Amino acid sequence: MAAIASSAAAPKAPSRPDPHRRVLDAAITCFTRNGFHGTSMHEICAEAGMSPGGLYRYFPSKDAIIIAIVEEERAARASLMACLEQAPGFVAGLVAMGDALFSGAVPMACVELAPEISAEAARNPVLKAKFDEVEAEMEEVIRRAFVAAQARGEVDPALDPDLALVMINAIGDGLLLRSRLEPDLPLATLMPLLGELIARMLAPPAAPPSSDLTR
Amino acid sequence: MAAIASSAAAPKAPSRPDPHRRVLDAAITCFTRNGFHGTSMHEICAEAGMSPGGLYRYFPSKDAIIIAIVEEERAARASLMACLEQAPGFVAGLVAMGDALFSGAVPMACVELAPEISAEAARNPVLKAKFDEVEAEMEEVIRRAFVAAQARGEVDPALDPDLALVMINAIGDGLLLRSRLEPDLPLATLMPLLGELIARMLAPPAAPPSSDLTR
Repeated sequence: MAAIASSAAAPKAPSRPDPHRRVLDAAITCFTRNGFHGTSMHEICAEAGMSPGGLYRYFPSKDAIIIAIVEEERAARASLMACLEQAPGFVAGLVAMGDALFSGAVPMACVELAPEISAEAARNPVLKAKFDEVEAEMEEVIRRAFVAAQARGEVDPALDPDLALVMINAIGDGLLLRSRLEPDLPLATLMPLLGELIARMLAPPAAPPSSDLTR
Repeated sequence: MAAIASSAAAPKAPSRPDPHRRVLDAAITCFTRNGFHGTSMHEICAEAGMSPGGLYRYFPSKDAIIIAIVEEERAARASLMACLEQAPGFVAGLVAMGDALFSGAVPMACVELAPEISAEAARNPVLKAKFDEVEAEMEEVIRRAFVAAQARGEVDPALDPDLALVMINAIGDGLLLRSRLEPDLPLATLMPLLGELIARMLAPPAAPPSSDLTR
């Protein structure tokens, strides 16, 4: 196949998504099927219906594609953050985020690719840096909502936010993994009940006040 | 290199671990470094200091090695289950399991390789079957301990065990992932505090009884 990438304007097939997006979608399909390391640039070309010249014009390497996949979900992450910020309470916000993710209302490659991205981030410093940047943004929003919920009494003010965030992140990561390994588990349906469990964990103590976690 | 695998008895180097174990340890090292699909049988040979003939004598394929890694941790899993069963309570048992895993007291490849194994299980039916078998064994033990804790009043008898196990598994998987992505997070040290959060989630309601989750 000849390279098709000599000029900036793409004169044909205006109904197809832009080439950058087509590469990312093709790569997500391939990575989900065969993993990052089980996928070649050649396979991504074939899946995207694009020549190698076309592909390399947009992405110099598979690493660059992986990083772009994480980066490109900025809009989806903003939708998730809006779920949290617009909900009537902190736990309701977590439930709304889980519902949006697991129902597919906010489609994210990270749901399908969560284990691949995590595995790769653990050994690829450039991806890890991007991954950490994204995680830090999400964590900052969750932390702000958590502290606000403590201030208005929904969440026990005695709870250490750092500790609670380790737990909340673990629950989120664990559910993401579960949705991949057990696609039949109705996680969107279960979210309200899982939210009730989280609410129990975070609720201020009923009278008399116990101070188990006050440090 | 010539094949060394024509007879059953290995006449030399009696102080090295047995070849089966050597292959698994070498594979764990390689998989952690480069992922399943980024590792060749040749690299596993080199890491194990073994000829291809020697390696293929024990394992016909990389798939067979992956499955053996999961299978071979039966003893480690039994130690974890013993932590749970011998603890003074259900949550104390979960804390003891987490401490054993994250302190390294019960070394398991699944801690280092959790994302790789999960990613691969999601697309490799033979590994998935082994993974499901192992998960079902663990879940059965946790479920039994959970129901016993409900019977003696440590855990709210109104909680649905299926739902609680989805949550407990998510927390476990999420913490395993976190230990890989943030090796500096002192998870073993945090386990007692994380256990207190889990205890809040599972505790019977203080008077008056609420029936939020009674279904």
